[in-house]
Amino acid sequence: MHPATAKDKKPEGRGLRKREAEKMAAEESSILVGQKSVMNYVLATVIQFNQGVKRVSLKARGRAISKAVDAAEIVRTRFLPGNVDIAAVKIGSEKVGEPGKERVVSTIEIVLERK
Amino acid sequence: MHPATAKDKKPEGRGLRKREAEKMAAEESSILVGQKSVMNYVLATVIQFNQGVKRVSLKARGRAISKAVDAAEIVRTRFLPGNVDIAAVKIGSEKVGEPGKERVVSTIEIVLERK
Repeated sequence: MHPATAKDKKPEGRGLRKREAEKMAAEESSILVGQKSVMNYVLATVIQFNQGVKRVSLKARGRAISKAVDAAEIVRTRFLPGNVDIAAVKIGSEKVGEPGKERVVSTIEIVLERK
Repeated sequence: MHPATAKDKKPEGRGLRKREAEKMAAEESSILVGQKSVMNYVLATVIQFNQGVKRVSLKARGRAISKAVDAAEIVRTRFLPGNVDIAAVKIGSEKVGEPGKERVVSTIEIVLERK
């Protein structure tokens, strides 16, 4: 009976570890939108959602802000229509550059959430 | 008596109309961010707040989105620090162009609110 129990337990143990890993992954993920083309960030976001992540944050600074909005809208309306909500949009400012040469750039964070 | 009544009523009528106009102005105002330099929109926003408007919406499409965020952040951190909150940030999509040549552009609306 023991070998049978062991056999029964083995897949369960694996299942548990897998479920824990999924739980870790399932929480939150963040993508920094930069110089690449918008489709890179769209696909990165879709892949995250398909891997079970619940919330994906698109973050951008300066002129990449429009691209982050584009990526969020393309994911929401074309790739996963009806499955993704915009949970939050936050804007802010950040200081960049070396001391003495500091400038302020605007930032955005768009939180996409799987329904 | 009729002329006197008319005289008395005239300023009162004006006052009412003025107060109504102020009430209208005090609620909400919307600024479309486009091709001009960011300071144009910053100043337009500050003028609205100084005229007693409670909420100013900065709206932008496409690449002007970053500029709208810049304008909002400059108003909030440099021109009216501590007096203005970001009440809401909404993003969306809009179809533009003639039928057959339609394209989708992303939009943003940033609602700034006087404290």
